[in-house]
Amino acid sequence: MIKFFKNLLKLIKEKDPAIHRNIEIILYPFFKVYIYYKIAHFLYLHKCFFLARYFSEVAKKRTGIEIHPGAVIGKDFFIDHGTGVVIGETTIIKDNVMLYHGVTLGGTGKEKNKRHPTIENNVTIGAGALILGNITIGTNSIIGAGAIVLRDVPPNSTIVGVYK
Amino acid sequence: MIKFFKNLLKLIKEKDPAIHRNIEIILYPFFKVYIYYKIAHFLYLHKCFFLARYFSEVAKKRTGIEIHPGAVIGKDFFIDHGTGVVIGETTIIKDNVMLYHGVTLGGTGKEKNKRHPTIENNVTIGAGALILGNITIGTNSIIGAGAIVLRDVPPNSTIVGVYK
Amino acid sequence: MIKFFKNLLKLIKEKDPAIHRNIEIILYPFFKVYIYYKIAHFLYLHKCFFLARYFSEVAKKRTGIEIHPGAVIGKDFFIDHGTGVVIGETTIIKDNVMLYHGVTLGGTGKEKNKRHPTIENNVTIGAGALILGNITIGTNSIIGAGAIVLRDVPPNSTIVGVYK
Repeated sequence: MIKFFKNLLKLIKEKDPAIHRNIEIILYPFFKVYIYYKIAHFLYLHKCFFLARYFSEVAKKRTGIEIHPGAVIGKDFFIDHGTGVVIGETTIIKDNVMLYHGVTLGGTGKEKNKRHPTIENNVTIGAGALILGNITIGTNSIIGAGAIVLRDVPPNSTIVGVYK
Repeated sequence: MIKFFKNLLKLIKEKDPAIHRNIEIILYPFFKVYIYYKIAHFLYLHKCFFLARYFSEVAKKRTGIEIHPGAVIGKDFFIDHGTGVVIGETTIIKDNVMLYHGVTLGGTGKEKNKRHPTIENNVTIGAGALILGNITIGTNSIIGAGAIVLRDVPPNSTIVGVYK
Repeated sequence: MIKFFKNLLKLIKEKDPAIHRNIEIILYPFFKVYIYYKIAHFLYLHKCFFLARYFSEVAKKRTGIEIHPGAVIGKDFFIDHGTGVVIGETTIIKDNVMLYHGVTLGGTGKEKNKRHPTIENNVTIGAGALILGNITIGTNSIIGAGAIVLRDVPPNSTIVGVYK
């Protein structure tokens, strides 16, 4: 648990230059939402769907960040600011991924089962970007703020504007 | 009242594949905001403007969805996720309309009286789309995620990107 | 203090045609967030960084508007609706600026020290616009809804779409 706090603190200090005091991490919406997500995801895996969803809704009300309990999230994940972030049920996020506020990892409404994106290692996604459908964002890619991504992105790409 | 719940449940099950248990509907932000909207709209029609606005602000604080009490909304309306949705005072929404999170049905700041959009039957509006001004979105149209719409959309259209 | 209320009321009546009763101003998210910001900014200037951040987070939870306590804001500032607004630490906002909901005055992640925008007098920024980096938006400019601005904007400009 202490290790988790230490890791998160290290991560936030690396990624957000606006932090002045270590204790500020307890004010980060991501700090709260991540703890709720851990509980909700555990409940989801044990098929307590209602309770899982309840925790994710409480987290959303407190932080503006909506992570469906079914989403699978790797190590060193971080969301800055966070209001308006929506992460769908079948999303897979690998290691060292960073999102800004307003990012949607959502569906197109046309797919069944795996209908949300897969985000590979070391990806950064800018504010307000929309990543929709069962697509893969390749390793080390950067998705610019406000981008709309509707198909697979190869590794090491930088995407701006509409990509379909 | 029970009919209302049943209808809403049917609607959500149709439109959101992420629902696992019926009871989850009470966690949907839309479920809450819609009840508040009904009260606020009733008060607005009876010229209790302050109280109407109060209910809509409480709803917004709880759900992230802001529906002005003056907006007129038809049957089978549904908002998925919802954070960041803003629906202006003179908006008219007809039947079977679906919005995703981050949609704005707003004004351009240049018009008086009817200054917000009219949405016809069976329209779907994707995440983060901005529909601005006293324009009409025609029947059966689909507005893509992140689209910016500033003029009338004919029926049966699919709109992506900027449309002005 | 009474003068502050009077000014704000005059401002809101000028800028938002949806207000019906004067007393409605106490329901405006901006009314709340602005009071919190004043306290947070005072604390920030006196290097009480944790407490400053705490107040700005409380304000964000109550209104959906995130103003970093370090931001410098001039007279006659107004934010309509507000959910999803993010204003970064080194942002400078001069007089008579208006923002709509979903506006980001943020960083690109590449700059140090002054890494957020400067907004000159009489600027209006539409819903969902992203203004990123240490750039200046010139006097009397209008930034359209959903615009993405990544470089300096000369005075008296109207910007739509991506500007980089």
